[in-house]
Amino acid sequence: MYDAFFESMTVPAQTKIAMLILDGLGGLPREAGGKTELESARTPNLDALAARSALGLSLPLGPGMAVGSGPGHLALFGYDPLQYEIGRGALEALGVDFELGPDDVAARGNFCTIDEQGILTDRRAGRLPTEDSTRLLELLREIHIEGVELFLLPVKEHRFAFVMRGTGLSADLSETDPLKTGVAPLKVSALRPEADKAARLVNEFIRQANSLLAGKHPANMIMLRGFAKLPTVPSFAEKFKLHAACVAVNGMYRGVSRLAGMDVLKVGGITLADEFTTLEQRWTEYDFFYLHFKKTDTCGESGDFEGKVKAIEEFDAQLPRLLALQPDVVIVTGDHSSPAVLKSHSWHPVPLLIYSAYVRPDGLAEFGERACSRGSLGIMPAKHIMPLALANAGRVAKYGA
Amino acid sequence: MYDAFFESMTVPAQTKIAMLILDGLGGLPREAGGKTELESARTPNLDALAARSALGLSLPLGPGMAVGSGPGHLALFGYDPLQYEIGRGALEALGVDFELGPDDVAARGNFCTIDEQGILTDRRAGRLPTEDSTRLLELLREIHIEGVELFLLPVKEHRFAFVMRGTGLSADLSETDPLKTGVAPLKVSALRPEADKAARLVNEFIRQANSLLAGKHPANMIMLRGFAKLPTVPSFAEKFKLHAACVAVNGMYRGVSRLAGMDVLKVGGITLADEFTTLEQRWTEYDFFYLHFKKTDTCGESGDFEGKVKAIEEFDAQLPRLLALQPDVVIVTGDHSSPAVLKSHSWHPVPLLIYSAYVRPDGLAEFGERACSRGSLGIMPAKHIMPLALANAGRVAKYGA
Repeated sequence: MYDAFFESMTVPAQTKIAMLILDGLGGLPREAGGKTELESARTPNLDALAARSALGLSLPLGPGMAVGSGPGHLALFGYDPLQYEIGRGALEALGVDFELGPDDVAARGNFCTIDEQGILTDRRAGRLPTEDSTRLLELLREIHIEGVELFLLPVKEHRFAFVMRGTGLSADLSETDPLKTGVAPLKVSALRPEADKAARLVNEFIRQANSLLAGKHPANMIMLRGFAKLPTVPSFAEKFKLHAACVAVNGMYRGVSRLAGMDVLKVGGITLADEFTTLEQRWTEYDFFYLHFKKTDTCGESGDFEGKVKAIEEFDAQLPRLLALQPDVVIVTGDHSSPAVLKSHSWHPVPLLIYSAYVRPDGLAEFGERACSRGSLGIMPAKHIMPLALANAGRVAKYGA
Repeated sequence: MYDAFFESMTVPAQTKIAMLILDGLGGLPREAGGKTELESARTPNLDALAARSALGLSLPLGPGMAVGSGPGHLALFGYDPLQYEIGRGALEALGVDFELGPDDVAARGNFCTIDEQGILTDRRAGRLPTEDSTRLLELLREIHIEGVELFLLPVKEHRFAFVMRGTGLSADLSETDPLKTGVAPLKVSALRPEADKAARLVNEFIRQANSLLAGKHPANMIMLRGFAKLPTVPSFAEKFKLHAACVAVNGMYRGVSRLAGMDVLKVGGITLADEFTTLEQRWTEYDFFYLHFKKTDTCGESGDFEGKVKAIEEFDAQLPRLLALQPDVVIVTGDHSSPAVLKSHSWHPVPLLIYSAYVRPDGLAEFGERACSRGSLGIMPAKHIMPLALANAGRVAKYGA
């Protein structure tokens, strides 16, 4: 109820907000009494900005809950991640930079092995190399089904993304992966009557794929699961009256931004420096910029503590380029924690910094987990970051007299 | 849900609670690294009380939302400001100290200018001086409409408050101000069938006013907007089993207190010292006192940093008079922030102090924004202050065995 009320109170203004997301930023010390990745990094620019900012910790979803980048970003963008769920199939397609449309039905696909009786013997086709599965997808692209357009996109090893585009398609479909070997893959069935058409078309695709793959052992069959369409979410323009742009190189983040109605900008390379160059070049055109940095999460997930420290230092070195543009509001945080010692996403709240000329600076000249835990923002639900940023940007009317 | 449950658990007791509200208390530093108004003020009495108190920050409504004094006070009194909305017309009438009854329909009125064809040429009648509009309201008081009593109350310049008292009146009425010139003022229409009667009577009033004002250029017409009745809210006695009194000199705060079922005490003057005198004189009669100090907000809204500092020091000098009465619980906070540098209400959480013999003192011998951000109460929704005060006053039963 507060969310809808808040959105009704937003007003346009001539101010700019920059949200800088270090994916998986939050960390843990390697040993008792030690420092986290962020605390270990030498970050003179972040520390100087922290001294003029309000600090706190961002809670992506709720206590004890580790989230993926999808819900993590929805929360950062001010959406309730439990209200707007991005299904697995849709995430897979977004993750390979596919421009998923509002009516597309997407699924996670994978190659598998069946025996002569059609019984599943390997759910991953021996973890088929990516080049092999890419070549086999070429073969499957020969399949044409009346009334729909099909897209098959390589992901990694035995995995691919499946997208079916057409009208009147529902994603309320059962999955074909029986989750164990020794049985046959399942047929897709409609979970609601309006999904009958989609079920029939998907089963026809699988039948033809099966026939084309005969003899291609170990990848002689496919399975599909996580059927999903994109959720319909109100855009940043509708919610917050912001003309918003995304600066990111990875598909999934570009996809979630597109979902939120942001313009997804072309970045002239894959480095963080390239992203900052895009930010500089397009600065006058938008009033909200989301910039995404992937490396912190990649290092966290692979257990590379030192790599994550270096990634944070790389970010720190670029930060002055944004500050030179004199943004009205700067947010620095992550979509979730990815401590190197856990090699995975975690539930820990994420260091958060909000700078504007109108925050009450905490005077804590350090950006790190412990400094942030002493900050005046406290532990703040991630979805409250946008409201606070908008207030600091003079974009919210007063309620009542 | 918690609210209703909590209220069912309150019990009477022989204890006294004093809630001292410095309007617009929260502030901002004038320059980076500087102090806020409250941090700049010399407040030996508040600081000494802070050392024996629990500190925190009060969030009036939600993240990023600046509120008016109406919703700000409802929250302080333990009501949800989104559940109980005080409409603009009702606020206007309360603001000039009118004793608005539960069935009265109130509106904001203003004089305006129309040309010979009835087309609006100035929505504010050249910002008519207050004395002129007061004189013209005398003229309009000649209007009598069968079945209702009318009240016309000068506000400032071209503005006035309109109140219609009678039975069977609904405030679900459209407004007459078209919000632009070059068109005729609108007629009032009923937004729901039960408002037909009120619409007819208001239109008749406007017709007669128009006729009386003919030739009174520039104030030859009136417009009415923000039709509202008072919301029906449970009283302090029902909610909290408190016999409550209001000590305030400004109409709006007296009005909101009356809405909450408090006895609104007569104050023998307009200074803060006069308010403390009333508190002393009536101390034995009530178990809850709300005391309101306006000057902090007036200075904040006019950008007078030094004036706000002095107002806080004036409050500090009076505080020992309350403490000498040995209240069981003392709350010191504001209904919202009004930083002088912003010259307006703001979204920043408000310094909060709760004293009783049973709080856990934070040992922070300073009452200021940064000290409060380190306090044990954290960032607390304003409507949770009353429950905490009641517990400290021994007025809440234990839940469950």
